[in-house]
Amino acid sequence: MPTYDHDATDTDTDTGSGSTDTVTVLGLGPMGRALAGVFLNAGLRVTVWNRTPGRDGELVARGATAAASPAEAVAASALTVVCVVNYDASDTILRQDAVTAALKGRTVVNLTADTPARARNTAEWAAAHGIRYLDGAIMTPATTIGTPEAVFLLSGPEELYGEHRPVLDAVGGTHSHLGTDIGRAAAYDIALLDIFWTAMSGYAHALAVARAEGITARELAPFAQGIGAILPPLFEEFAADVDDGRYSGELNPITSAVSSMAHIAGASESHGIEATVIRAAEGQARRVIGLGHGTDGFMRVTELLGRSRR
Amino acid sequence: MPTYDHDATDTDTDTGSGSTDTVTVLGLGPMGRALAGVFLNAGLRVTVWNRTPGRDGELVARGATAAASPAEAVAASALTVVCVVNYDASDTILRQDAVTAALKGRTVVNLTADTPARARNTAEWAAAHGIRYLDGAIMTPATTIGTPEAVFLLSGPEELYGEHRPVLDAVGGTHSHLGTDIGRAAAYDIALLDIFWTAMSGYAHALAVARAEGITARELAPFAQGIGAILPPLFEEFAADVDDGRYSGELNPITSAVSSMAHIAGASESHGIEATVIRAAEGQARRVIGLGHGTDGFMRVTELLGRSRR
Repeated sequence: MPTYDHDATDTDTDTGSGSTDTVTVLGLGPMGRALAGVFLNAGLRVTVWNRTPGRDGELVARGATAAASPAEAVAASALTVVCVVNYDASDTILRQDAVTAALKGRTVVNLTADTPARARNTAEWAAAHGIRYLDGAIMTPATTIGTPEAVFLLSGPEELYGEHRPVLDAVGGTHSHLGTDIGRAAAYDIALLDIFWTAMSGYAHALAVARAEGITARELAPFAQGIGAILPPLFEEFAADVDDGRYSGELNPITSAVSSMAHIAGASESHGIEATVIRAAEGQARRVIGLGHGTDGFMRVTELLGRSRR
Repeated sequence: MPTYDHDATDTDTDTGSGSTDTVTVLGLGPMGRALAGVFLNAGLRVTVWNRTPGRDGELVARGATAAASPAEAVAASALTVVCVVNYDASDTILRQDAVTAALKGRTVVNLTADTPARARNTAEWAAAHGIRYLDGAIMTPATTIGTPEAVFLLSGPEELYGEHRPVLDAVGGTHSHLGTDIGRAAAYDIALLDIFWTAMSGYAHALAVARAEGITARELAPFAQGIGAILPPLFEEFAADVDDGRYSGELNPITSAVSSMAHIAGASESHGIEATVIRAAEGQARRVIGLGHGTDGFMRVTELLGRSRR
């Protein structure tokens, strides 16, 4: 069983809030339920609360305590883990006077997904109210929680992370502390989800075009998996190029990428299927060429997007 | 050495065109040069031609014959492999009277990338002039040619494919004959490149957003590789869902995907970085919700895109 060592002063010992083996989970969607479940498996005293009632039945049957309010929930543990739909939702819960007061001297780990700016804003609120704060993101589905496949990103004060690590480790998988900038986990999360959802959009579109050509998703899938498999090594190779500002197009110039994207968009539109995603991508690549970099490789697009910041 | 067996009558034996071990390569970009190189390695008599002179030096040094014109090039072999930038380029070469006449009774395998419609149009031209025609696509970079990693897609008459397979196999890798519909290889190619280029656009954008957050590409890359690694199994799982019209969002509803995409776009735009690609993807997902499918999974987007055909 993980041990838990904290230095927050706490007088509310009768609710167990001062003990080293308590954790509160706010938000009982699939991810919150999975987190509470593995905390129970680890032998922790788990308190749960969800805005919509009725989600805690199985957890209570397994030994969790159902709190009547979020204030009661956070008062029950030294560590509160929040996992709701976004920071509008977590603000609504945490920034009630009773909850904020109950959290004083305790730790919040917010695993809700949102932007780096929202994470930084929450850290400011926490600091103003004497609440200790870590921000995090879960990169893998709820089904991975408690398994080696789970991937957690965390950021915030290193000491605070170290202190709560024994409890956090109970959720399994890989934990990466990305630095003290509280927005860093959310920034990684945003960038990684950008890759994921853009790729999934490409897959959904590819299946629509394939279907119009009489190709089933199952027929395309083995080849699609082949395309997926070549991405990780390319990601690594291109990362070095982008950091170093090298965009060699010797083997595959961006003009060739544009030619492919125009074929894709044309084939899609010839079937009456909208091609807005790939047309937007094609437009960016064409602008790279327009800026005089047609012999460079496709990744020069990263530089173009960065230019718009000036 | 691969053997080559064909039934085209040919009287031009002094140039080697009737022999079973000849091949002509039109187009000497990186891919064409790689193809010609492995044909030479396989002991075939290789004739080459390129619109821009000077690309054949190394190949000629290794034993290839440089033709003075495309008509002379195609007359030298029973099989001509074409690999140029697109079908505008291949039409310009093949649809000259002298070339078309010289190709009569011979076989063209066009490995140039373009749309299914262009492949079908070329097959019609070939049939009208007594030219035997296979269409194909190469899914892997020039550096894979001659290795087990190369992936070739081919479509067209099964017998013709079988007849030329010994020569085609000299290029190594995996060959998939996808059917007799001549446009089928191009359709697979388009769908697979759709996945690839959309994903790469997502990666380029993610790196720009990460940089604005002070995260280097090298720092993000290991996590990006993790995202890439989860795509192939998801592609397989979702293919079955799409074919069967099941779009369960129980674990991950499309409303949650839209929330993520809005965070990504918002974080990007807050840094002054355009988010047109992910905004287009977000718009499609929002329309799925607008059509009453908010509890379905993200892949319902495929259905939405198909709807636009009606």
